[in-house]
Amino acid sequence: MGGAMAFTWRLTKRRMAPALFSRCHATLIVGGSKTEKEAATTTSILGPDLPDIWSPLPTSLPRPMPMPPVNHAAPPTIIDGKSIAEEIRSEISADVLHLKSSYGKVPGLAVILVGQRRDSQSYVRYKIKACNQVGIRSLLAQLPDSCSEDEVVDSVTRFNQDPSVHGILVQLPLPQHMDEERILGAISLQKDVDGFHPLNVGNLALRGRQPLFIPCAAKACLQLLLRHQIDLMGKHAVVIGRSKVVGLPTSLLLQRHHATVSIVHAFTHRPEEITREADIVISAAGVANLVRGSWLKRGSVVIDVGTNPIEDPDSEHGYRLTGDVHFDEAVKVASAITPVPGGVGPVTIAMLLSNTLDAAKEAFRSSV
Amino acid sequence: MGGAMAFTWRLTKRRMAPALFSRCHATLIVGGSKTEKEAATTTSILGPDLPDIWSPLPTSLPRPMPMPPVNHAAPPTIIDGKSIAEEIRSEISADVLHLKSSYGKVPGLAVILVGQRRDSQSYVRYKIKACNQVGIRSLLAQLPDSCSEDEVVDSVTRFNQDPSVHGILVQLPLPQHMDEERILGAISLQKDVDGFHPLNVGNLALRGRQPLFIPCAAKACLQLLLRHQIDLMGKHAVVIGRSKVVGLPTSLLLQRHHATVSIVHAFTHRPEEITREADIVISAAGVANLVRGSWLKRGSVVIDVGTNPIEDPDSEHGYRLTGDVHFDEAVKVASAITPVPGGVGPVTIAMLLSNTLDAAKEAFRSSV
Repeated sequence: MGGAMAFTWRLTKRRMAPALFSRCHATLIVGGSKTEKEAATTTSILGPDLPDIWSPLPTSLPRPMPMPPVNHAAPPTIIDGKSIAEEIRSEISADVLHLKSSYGKVPGLAVILVGQRRDSQSYVRYKIKACNQVGIRSLLAQLPDSCSEDEVVDSVTRFNQDPSVHGILVQLPLPQHMDEERILGAISLQKDVDGFHPLNVGNLALRGRQPLFIPCAAKACLQLLLRHQIDLMGKHAVVIGRSKVVGLPTSLLLQRHHATVSIVHAFTHRPEEITREADIVISAAGVANLVRGSWLKRGSVVIDVGTNPIEDPDSEHGYRLTGDVHFDEAVKVASAITPVPGGVGPVTIAMLLSNTLDAAKEAFRSSV
Repeated sequence: MGGAMAFTWRLTKRRMAPALFSRCHATLIVGGSKTEKEAATTTSILGPDLPDIWSPLPTSLPRPMPMPPVNHAAPPTIIDGKSIAEEIRSEISADVLHLKSSYGKVPGLAVILVGQRRDSQSYVRYKIKACNQVGIRSLLAQLPDSCSEDEVVDSVTRFNQDPSVHGILVQLPLPQHMDEERILGAISLQKDVDGFHPLNVGNLALRGRQPLFIPCAAKACLQLLLRHQIDLMGKHAVVIGRSKVVGLPTSLLLQRHHATVSIVHAFTHRPEEITREADIVISAAGVANLVRGSWLKRGSVVIDVGTNPIEDPDSEHGYRLTGDVHFDEAVKVASAITPVPGGVGPVTIAMLLSNTLDAAKEAFRSSV
């Protein structure tokens, strides 16, 4: 294939991009049946399914498609997770009302909390409060640290059998003596709203396939990027951290959107060097202030998933939450950045509601 | 954590690496029961399961762990896939004999070939020949291009039910009118020796979990690296291509070995720039001579999975196979490189035998 032809094709591919996912209305479409609109938006969060057609350019040709210039004088966009979460919650509320009028039923989420961890208790409180806000029924099973693994599995099994429960969430981390894989594995695939089941992960990894659920934090990162019209196709995205909760599914989801993804973790040599090459940085390492301003390329987009408690005697609870990214330094370099708190966190909870809603819709549909 | 402490820890981590996977004897251990040795080697191909413990260093500290210097004067290692494959096949032969004497049965592989593609016919011939070499029984179901999807599924179903068949392989690509997902999905999970089932992919992606089977080409790439004692931990590996057959599982498997992985594909802007940063390049794009010498860092290790037919009137069949990598250019820059043919190909077929052997062992074990 000649260079000129390849060049034309690349430009064409580029032109396709905005039309394909310039606007993403999430998966939260009102309606009781699987409409085309809904199918289209499901595709949006998973990215367009495009074939890989290579058209190598001789390296002597001028570089195609320079990245759009960043206006360094413009102040960076502070991506407001709270308002995006509110927008999504209001879409979900409308959907829940619609389901109620169509089927006489509302979605239900069961949360299992084992032990007394204060951070886990807070997270569970937020989740239940968010359910209440949108009309999703919530159930909470609290078990003591001293309970047996079997008791947790029994609790999961009961919720599996309960037709009023559409999503089941086991708050992590579990006490050390418990087998997390066994407990999470007990959750019915249809109610795995955290999306941690290996079948869901496999279907997220495999292009063209549809996982039943995508882990909430990964979906939240994509929501923030897509709702800010940040183009992902071909961009270099560096994901810092590779947990099943955030890093892994986010790296897979970004690939579904045709980003070029690098995964940085604790064993990476000189993580700052590869991060400095990134157009988009998503950090979920769980280390306060790990990502310094010097780690970032000017104009990069920074999504901070870290919520690290650090001591703060002036704060009400003696600690405050801080991100993985050194915000004050990063804000001087990035073109857009999420704050902590108020960035990814609220949208992650909204995605839990969204997954629960999807689970309920599917259950209601198949029951009629 | 102070910089000095972090530095010490990093060095310790580094020292652990060679002991953990300095030698990999694959998963091909003689013996009828799941021995500790076997469990250990299963871990080898999946990489050691280590926690991510971040110990960020202040950027002002001296850089830890420079990459080992490459001797640019030394000629590059040409990684000899043929001899590695032979080594593996002889291990498998011994195992097959052992199974025969223990259980009075041998492993069986069923291959389903639809249509008349010449390249597919060649690949199937190689696979059946390799089975014969090691004493694995092979069955071939050949179906015409004109057959229906249901007929292919029926064929899969029959092999699922046949206790003398332990592995089932549907040669890809299937004719365009067929639903590949449906046909591959019909293969019993226990006989999915290609490892394409989403549950296997999910369990490969999720650290700490064990897929039943890992796709053969990905396993072959790792075998070549591990048998050449190429350290992966923390190294930057660039995988070019992201198919479910090679690129995706290879990128996941490299992550299990704690490499820092970047996935380059047809939508990547300036793929040569990110590839030039790589310590290890694995190319599976399916484009002849895509990767030029100028794409490579001096001293990098290059694994070429491409087998692209290009016209060659001097060749017996009118074409010859060439890799994704421009070998003559790359060999001047790389420290080690696989040729095409004679690199990844033969080891990939050996891995198919290995997966079939594993499937048979599991079946024999559970039948007694």
